[in-house]
Amino acid sequence: MNKAALQKLIVEKKSCLCVGLDPDFTKMPPHLLQLKDPVFEFNKAIIDATKPYCVAYKPNFAFYEALGAKGWESLKKTVDYIGDTHFKIADAKRGDIGNTAKQYAKSVFETLNFDAITLSPYMGLDSVAPFLEYDNKWVILLALTSNKSAANFQLLKTENNHYLFEDIIQKSLQWPNNNRIMYVVGATNTDYLNLVRKSAPESFLLIPGIGTQGGDIKAVIQNGGTEKVNLLINVARSIIYADNNVDFQQAVAAKAKAYQQTIYKELNI
Amino acid sequence: MNKAALQKLIVEKKSCLCVGLDPDFTKMPPHLLQLKDPVFEFNKAIIDATKPYCVAYKPNFAFYEALGAKGWESLKKTVDYIGDTHFKIADAKRGDIGNTAKQYAKSVFETLNFDAITLSPYMGLDSVAPFLEYDNKWVILLALTSNKSAANFQLLKTENNHYLFEDIIQKSLQWPNNNRIMYVVGATNTDYLNLVRKSAPESFLLIPGIGTQGGDIKAVIQNGGTEKVNLLINVARSIIYADNNVDFQQAVAAKAKAYQQTIYKELNI
Repeated sequence: MNKAALQKLIVEKKSCLCVGLDPDFTKMPPHLLQLKDPVFEFNKAIIDATKPYCVAYKPNFAFYEALGAKGWESLKKTVDYIGDTHFKIADAKRGDIGNTAKQYAKSVFETLNFDAITLSPYMGLDSVAPFLEYDNKWVILLALTSNKSAANFQLLKTENNHYLFEDIIQKSLQWPNNNRIMYVVGATNTDYLNLVRKSAPESFLLIPGIGTQGGDIKAVIQNGGTEKVNLLINVARSIIYADNNVDFQQAVAAKAKAYQQTIYKELNI
Repeated sequence: MNKAALQKLIVEKKSCLCVGLDPDFTKMPPHLLQLKDPVFEFNKAIIDATKPYCVAYKPNFAFYEALGAKGWESLKKTVDYIGDTHFKIADAKRGDIGNTAKQYAKSVFETLNFDAITLSPYMGLDSVAPFLEYDNKWVILLALTSNKSAANFQLLKTENNHYLFEDIIQKSLQWPNNNRIMYVVGATNTDYLNLVRKSAPESFLLIPGIGTQGGDIKAVIQNGGTEKVNLLINVARSIIYADNNVDFQQAVAAKAKAYQQTIYKELNI
């Protein structure tokens, strides 16, 4: 999916909501655990309930890999089930080089047919370039994450007299195919969001940290949004674990709809 | 495996060689491709041929994940086949937080029974702490990698007036259970290796970039070794793809032995 198509989808759906698919046996409705593939059944139910309200899905790979080969199968089925109506983000936070990065790219963009992958920038261009070679596929670089210890390194001041996360954005915007780069920017601090927009005025930003992790949708859109929105606001737990009864889909749909409406109220589209 | 056990293994095997298990269909002996699980058969043959000469194995996860669920099964079989005689490194280069990191830790240390995992430091302590909670398991933080674009960010000077990779080492050595942290340090520059040893005089270092990637074993051991060695020198392609005929194991064993002997000559053990 290219930039124009994603922007169009946001206008059509009146939403820039991304739903995080982080299946956890200890939190999902217990009646699903008796089924043959609880992870896929859970995801399928979540997708059915939320698809009118979101433009993207983001499975976090850790939850699938923790289940070994079976988790990988559930992930493949989930991606296939989503289909091409939504933007599909592989939240893999990978970062490796050369041949290895090529293998990752093949796995995520070809075998699994994701539209985008989250990558750690620490190893630099080599670790990103193989992913950027794919037309209509995206790299989402970790810039400023929403966790407490993000400050350990991301907020170090560098020789360029700004934060490390700003270096990462500015440097990566000089790389080939930089028009296929998005950035992860945690929603917990709007001052930093303004700094990100100074460095990357037109890039798409993926915003985690809304919902269970806190963060304010209005502030995010006001400080991080552009004329064409160019934001994906991710919510996982507060939507997908809204309820764990047999009829959990109703509460999940209601929660997703509430987020969509809160988001739409702030968007100028 | 704890530090004393790993140090003892190095003395016993007269080697600090780690063999990288990066199975690639385009490079492995073609007769294996007809078998039911070529990746496992290849790894099994490599392990049988190299186990007298090395102390550790390091499967790079990207090569397995590129194959989907089947790759995951080959990886599990490979780890089980190695057993407890060697140190097993999950080269996963992960970096995620909280619940997600816990899932990764469980996957790698419990489901797959690895001794160590490589992690990206970019997200800070939150992304590392869940791995450090395991007794006798190790985190190997990316400090200075051996790829060309490592310089993009790892060699930025920070407010602390040294390189970012030095910040990462110094900061992480203040974290709880820091005695279970090793560092990845590319072999391509011995000046940097000296800087690493100033920050981490007694930590184990995992050294990639030897073999196909270049790098000089003598210089690495002289600049990076300690009294108790505390080095793992990784070689992948130059050993595992030494030959691709039916009797490839002979060339693989000979190459591993040659590396072991070159290493042993430089070690004071």
